Amino acid sequence: MKIVIDMMGGDNGLKATIPSTMRFIENHKDIELFLVGDISQLTEFNKYSNIHLVNSETIIKMDADPLSALRDLKSSLMVGVKTFLDNKCDALISAGSTGALLTAATFKIKRIEGVTRPGLITPFPTYKKNKKFVCCDLGANTLCTKEELNQFATMGSIYYKTLFHDQEFPRVYQLNIGTESEKGTTLNKGAYALMKENSKINFLGNMEARDPLYGEVDVLITDGYSGNIFLKTMEGTAKAMSKMLKDAFKRNIFSKIGYLLVRKGVNEMKEKMDYKNVGGAMLMGVNGVVIKAHGSSDPKGFLSALENSYVLCKVDIINKFKENINK
Amino acid sequence: MKIVIDMMGGDNGLKATIPSTMRFIENHKDIELFLVGDISQLTEFNKYSNIHLVNSETIIKMDADPLSALRDLKSSLMVGVKTFLDNKCDALISAGSTGALLTAATFKIKRIEGVTRPGLITPFPTYKKNKKFVCCDLGANTLCTKEELNQFATMGSIYYKTLFHDQEFPRVYQLNIGTESEKGTTLNKGAYALMKENSKINFLGNMEARDPLYGEVDVLITDGYSGNIFLKTMEGTAKAMSKMLKDAFKRNIFSKIGYLLVRKGVNEMKEKMDYKNVGGAMLMGVNGVVIKAHGSSDPKGFLSALENSYVLCKVDIINKFKENINK
Repeated sequence: MKIVIDMMGGDNGLKATIPSTMRFIENHKDIELFLVGDISQLTEFNKYSNIHLVNSETIIKMDADPLSALRDLKSSLMVGVKTFLDNKCDALISAGSTGALLTAATFKIKRIEGVTRPGLITPFPTYKKNKKFVCCDLGANTLCTKEELNQFATMGSIYYKTLFHDQEFPRVYQLNIGTESEKGTTLNKGAYALMKENSKINFLGNMEARDPLYGEVDVLITDGYSGNIFLKTMEGTAKAMSKMLKDAFKRNIFSKIGYLLVRKGVNEMKEKMDYKNVGGAMLMGVNGVVIKAHGSSDPKGFLSALENSYVLCKVDIINKFKENINK
Repeated sequence: MKIVIDMMGGDNGLKATIPSTMRFIENHKDIELFLVGDISQLTEFNKYSNIHLVNSETIIKMDADPLSALRDLKSSLMVGVKTFLDNKCDALISAGSTGALLTAATFKIKRIEGVTRPGLITPFPTYKKNKKFVCCDLGANTLCTKEELNQFATMGSIYYKTLFHDQEFPRVYQLNIGTESEKGTTLNKGAYALMKENSKINFLGNMEARDPLYGEVDVLITDGYSGNIFLKTMEGTAKAMSKMLKDAFKRNIFSKIGYLLVRKGVNEMKEKMDYKNVGGAMLMGVNGVVIKAHGSSDPKGFLSALENSYVLCKVDIINKFKENINK
């Protein structure tokens, strides 16, 4: 297994990627890693025989224009993409600019045959213990067609089934502003009809945005604009509530003592709902495991993205897509 | 001040509306109330001279088709609308079907002159103490034009300034998937340009969905589809986290004792984030204070919607809109 890591991307850069990569190497001895970045700062990796250091000179800014980023061939991202292609690698991980990564992956690594558009997919926590659901598209495509949503449903079901094993036929729902079949936009109605006819998936209808956390959906399908609003609203609400909770615990001496008694469970909940820990979003539909880690990834979050890429390679997700999409 | 209350609407019907209306009457002696519903069940209100009971025979289902609901003239909603018009009332409150209320209000009560489309607006809690922001449209219009969003911004600023008094020039942002001016859909870009030129508002740019809870926005503008996703995601996340918290407290004897020490602050937070308590959404742009209370309103939530309608009438919000929209 060959994995390329953009060591320079993300808000925390090397501070997040070095310790997590170190841990990742220790967890898995069977991987060949290509670390792309300022190699003068990566000397501690020299001792490993299964690690290649690849030098890059620039870093693409988080808010960079994707197309101009594509021309910055000395950037850690573009050197990473080239390294991926030259060495026929399995995965590429970056916490850098989402737009630049998506554009570079789509144009250079290219789509799987038969895929119209790649979409961003990631697992989400739910209220139920150990139960996750996946949602696609989280923002790769501002606009989508009904055919694209239908294809996301097919690929998303494969992704879910390959990563989790609790459902023989993953339950697919469309994110919508109401549950009835005629609700929502023209896109919603069109995608509803196509998914209902799609024999590769188990489509159960529309779902409102307040319900996915309760564990009744496995694969939630949405256009990238709404998916991005959904993802970020959840992220912001969870973070704000965690902060409020912290304030509630700091109120007075009694609440501080109380906190000591409840902290284990409370911290587990906060960790569960912290989107830095979800392991990054996969750009589903390109010809390789391309993972966008959260821009604000800390070492733990970035490690989680690395582990996610490892699992996806291990289960041979790309070939699973290839076998099923054009069937 | 004359207020019409649909006593039968909502998941809890009379169980929610009777106790809250009782409390509302005690809080405000200066109101004339029209209670619409099955009057045989409303006899306890007979003792008040400022209360009129108006009989209705049917109840519009929560998932009713709006246009067919409009033809059910014996329903509590349609009798309510007629009562509103016949008695030149100031406000109408219902916890019933959103679609039916919106359609009935728009077609029968009609829009304020100059208003293209009414939009649903409501205050949201934030991480900051006593700080709220308002968001429009929350789902009255699945599709919007840029001109409509721009008008929501004007009306929303008036609404915010009239209800809260912490900003001379309420800070307006557009909900979007990125902060740069060129982000999002064609609608986003068009609305951005119009709002930037709108001299009646203080437009500061785009905001991502993870940020409104931090208190830097006063008026958040969005199309009804995205606004509905935003509202319901926040609602669902807050509810799921409150449930997880409850489980964390019930873990063992220590966590149970701990809960006793932290519960005051924690319950305040849960109350703050519980959308049943936000007081209902106003259908901004129709010629009267029309309030949609949450479908699952309990007595407390419905009282909050009633109190909200009282404040909006007291500050003469409709005339404030009229004075400013066509200026």
